[in-house]
Amino acid sequence: MTDTTRTTDLRETVERFWATAEARDWDAFADTLADDVVYTLPQTRERISGKERFVRFNREYPSDWHLRMERVVAEPGQVVTWLRFSVGFEGAEEMHALSFFTGDEKGNIATMTDFWPEPYEPPASRNHLRELTERY
Amino acid sequence: MTDTTRTTDLRETVERFWATAEARDWDAFADTLADDVVYTLPQTRERISGKERFVRFNREYPSDWHLRMERVVAEPGQVVTWLRFSVGFEGAEEMHALSFFTGDEKGNIATMTDFWPEPYEPPASRNHLRELTERY
Repeated sequence: MTDTTRTTDLRETVERFWATAEARDWDAFADTLADDVVYTLPQTRERISGKERFVRFNREYPSDWHLRMERVVAEPGQVVTWLRFSVGFEGAEEMHALSFFTGDEKGNIATMTDFWPEPYEPPASRNHLRELTERY
Repeated sequence: MTDTTRTTDLRETVERFWATAEARDWDAFADTLADDVVYTLPQTRERISGKERFVRFNREYPSDWHLRMERVVAEPGQVVTWLRFSVGFEGAEEMHALSFFTGDEKGNIATMTDFWPEPYEPPASRNHLRELTERY
């Protein structure tokens, strides 16, 4: 890796992280990560520490998943992505994935924390507000 | 509202949005919003259009909720917040809330889309990766 790529900004690094994940190009994927990257899944209270383990977690993750970017918001040292994931056949239900990244001083990904919200029905406790909303 | 507050950047507006929500200061809360603000809840496929309805939705939302900011990421015209919400008594379980904002040309909130991910157990389909993760 050259000095030029090391100083690329974190937004570009995160875009490359997702593009290489979608391409299953695990060497290029690993190049976006700090050696001591920490990945956190707050919903399951799981944490993975270190580049090698984190690459393996992604490489061996089950199912034929595909992603497309919905939104990216970036500032120096921090990036958030909102993606839509689909699994298997075309037209399958998509899931949203919300991922918070921080970078290290080299511009590599130092931490990633992501969330996988599931569909649910509007709770009965706010039935009195139903007239305010439309379903889509 | 003065011209000065109209040109404040969106990060500050979003921070004011959450501070006034927590304070139940609904007039100041309304001042952060575009008249035609659109609020979207992808998990329930609900949408609320217009400042008046959206203020009422928040003002009349059930339970004694409280929020604290975990992270803000902002760029011109776009902001993301990651909050922790708690309901009722101190020490109650917290929920994560992830909110994506866009602003209009006056610096008011034009759209807000948010996600409320729930806790779940690691799926059995990735049991073979369990050795990579620690629970916390």
